[in-house]
Amino acid sequence: MTEMKLTNNKLVIDDVRMRGFKKRSPIEEVMAWLDQQTIDLPKQTIPLQEAAGRVITSDVISQFNIPGFNRSMMDGYAIVASDAQGASSYNQLELKVIGKSMPGQGSTAKVVSGSTVRIMTGAPVPEGANAVLPAENVAADDQSILVMENVAEGRNIGRIGEDILLGSTIIKKGRRLRAQDIALLASVGEKNVSVFSKPRISIVVTGNEILEIGTPPQGYQIVNSNGPMLEALSRRDGGITIKSSIVADDPELIRQVMLEDYDILLITGGTSVGEEDMAPLLLAELGDLAIHGVAMRPSRSAGMGSIGNKRVFLLPGNPVACLCAYDFFAGNLIRRLSGYTKNGPYRSIHKVLKQKIVSVIGRTDYARIRLSENFVEPIAISGAAILSSTTQADGFVIIPADSEGYPPETEVEVFLYDN
Amino acid sequence: MTEMKLTNNKLVIDDVRMRGFKKRSPIEEVMAWLDQQTIDLPKQTIPLQEAAGRVITSDVISQFNIPGFNRSMMDGYAIVASDAQGASSYNQLELKVIGKSMPGQGSTAKVVSGSTVRIMTGAPVPEGANAVLPAENVAADDQSILVMENVAEGRNIGRIGEDILLGSTIIKKGRRLRAQDIALLASVGEKNVSVFSKPRISIVVTGNEILEIGTPPQGYQIVNSNGPMLEALSRRDGGITIKSSIVADDPELIRQVMLEDYDILLITGGTSVGEEDMAPLLLAELGDLAIHGVAMRPSRSAGMGSIGNKRVFLLPGNPVACLCAYDFFAGNLIRRLSGYTKNGPYRSIHKVLKQKIVSVIGRTDYARIRLSENFVEPIAISGAAILSSTTQADGFVIIPADSEGYPPETEVEVFLYDN
Repeated sequence: MTEMKLTNNKLVIDDVRMRGFKKRSPIEEVMAWLDQQTIDLPKQTIPLQEAAGRVITSDVISQFNIPGFNRSMMDGYAIVASDAQGASSYNQLELKVIGKSMPGQGSTAKVVSGSTVRIMTGAPVPEGANAVLPAENVAADDQSILVMENVAEGRNIGRIGEDILLGSTIIKKGRRLRAQDIALLASVGEKNVSVFSKPRISIVVTGNEILEIGTPPQGYQIVNSNGPMLEALSRRDGGITIKSSIVADDPELIRQVMLEDYDILLITGGTSVGEEDMAPLLLAELGDLAIHGVAMRPSRSAGMGSIGNKRVFLLPGNPVACLCAYDFFAGNLIRRLSGYTKNGPYRSIHKVLKQKIVSVIGRTDYARIRLSENFVEPIAISGAAILSSTTQADGFVIIPADSEGYPPETEVEVFLYDN
Repeated sequence: MTEMKLTNNKLVIDDVRMRGFKKRSPIEEVMAWLDQQTIDLPKQTIPLQEAAGRVITSDVISQFNIPGFNRSMMDGYAIVASDAQGASSYNQLELKVIGKSMPGQGSTAKVVSGSTVRIMTGAPVPEGANAVLPAENVAADDQSILVMENVAEGRNIGRIGEDILLGSTIIKKGRRLRAQDIALLASVGEKNVSVFSKPRISIVVTGNEILEIGTPPQGYQIVNSNGPMLEALSRRDGGITIKSSIVADDPELIRQVMLEDYDILLITGGTSVGEEDMAPLLLAELGDLAIHGVAMRPSRSAGMGSIGNKRVFLLPGNPVACLCAYDFFAGNLIRRLSGYTKNGPYRSIHKVLKQKIVSVIGRTDYARIRLSENFVEPIAISGAAILSSTTQADGFVIIPADSEGYPPETEVEVFLYDN
């Protein structure tokens, strides 16, 4: 069976090899395909305390007024505001202390003209009182206080519902929850929250030459570096790696991993049109190879498609191309499935180029750059195999397909790796 | 014993209450104190795959050249470059195929003039060859190829050490590891990495009125919202919450949590100078209350200090003040202990104010704002108790102590919550 398949593949491989990439898809075509990929992953209900950074799947309407009572904003004395009229340090007015309102408890005393209740921050304002005097602005003993200033009605009182009104929408669907959103949801009694699931990512690094992480490189072998990179990238974008493996250049083994369960398969190496490049042919056989070859450098041999409800990204084995193709294509979809914006994860700034960047019409270029205080400097090393160029770079500049590049002094948009 | 302590505290409390905050520390004084807090947390060795986002504690020097051999950058044919001299589609030169070099294996064949070795991307260049012709640029069968173009010596060959040189420093101490850094470390055989520990955070929300998360608010009680907010904030800043609890307004209980084990204690509520404000007195008793009262709004009742090697932050119970005091003071130290930059976690942009912002000399103001396309608009609600103001805001503007505020049309720096 394996023999048979190998023979079949060999025939097709030869056919593909003879033609090379007949046409590489422009970025716009790839993006249009990505935009069409709607996969309905199940929602997930998780404890509120774990929800920071996750994206909520429905509006939350408060069932409560917050605060649910008129509360004091200060430690002080709850009074009838008109009692303080005309008070000053020269005209100190005495009020009798008739009770004490503590947070969570309140006071049953009713404040009437001539009386006051000692009150703490956050404690309920007792019946009859309509203002709170700060403790530091009165002279006081346990029996009475001396008022020395006017106070407006409502002063230092937080009204029922002033933070959140019963029936109001406090968080909207699609919000990526911040720390303060978690606090707001907690304050209205929420315990769990429904969020977008983490897309389940399977990462497969192909190649007979690949060693496991933690092995010293030796002979003609190299250590798996794309695997851990893709794990970190997809985690950043809201995914969860369910499997990360190295698979030999054997079409039967690659077929097996393609047929396994996952939402997104990231498969690196063997994506081009060479003799060892089996992944595109297998994807075409098992599902739909929608894109193969992209008019972008690096990433030219990237491809993508689907097997039923699963999506498969063919990422180049060269690490720079792998990073680039992940960020632009696979990451785009993973971020969208996570509920994040599909926009890239990198913030951008504008700065002026020190040297020219050369590109060619019809190809999008991903140029790694370094920042200095005033300038953007392209990194000389352009090879897609030079991983260290991405660790030495501060970010990258995109040269669109309709541009031949930029002369020195051009202001360009720089996307920063440091996010 | 408890009775005795209560009595002692009551006396001191009365003393503090009478004076209020005699002086609030300017921000500069608080920052100077924070800068002095050096705590040597133990380093932690973790698997490389878990190290993205963590900060490395020492330089990494490569023990290997990467690649460790001359490798082919293309699928094609390894030749002696001079063999292709003068080749064109009109002058096709034939070379005999004498072997095949696969990734991880190579070929024992020695390329001499007139011969070639079929070679795959990433495979070692065989002895004698000094250039690789891309497969798509030659006509080929299993026995021979027809060369139709010149090729420069070294073309499509990645030289030993061109990515990483043996003995070179590939990652510097203090680097917050990105996905591509993980890949680079993997490629030189690293298995584990030494990173700054996550500071261990204990979060204590004080107050008799506080309900557990997931409880509907009722009567005069409110749900714990600062706790989950601080968990999310300190996680973002590299900390790990080892305990998160609600503690009643009982000095003996608060004393107990202060005496427990942690690196940083975040205690909210009861930080001011009122009758229920026990935390500052207890910190002063058990250790050093270095700062109490900050000339910043909100956060005026914030405080901080130490108990031996532990640091304690007294955060206001009002949620906006709690968020502000965390981000400016506690977060500053947590980020630094995590190895992150002590700078705030929020990126900033510059935009023009739509309305004026009023402040007073001598006080730093933290003004929540909304962004529109062209403007920054201060949020009308200024109360430190209005949590929803921080969820409706897009970020904040800082008005320094030496400013009375900004007139409309002023360009201001806006820090964005959305990070």
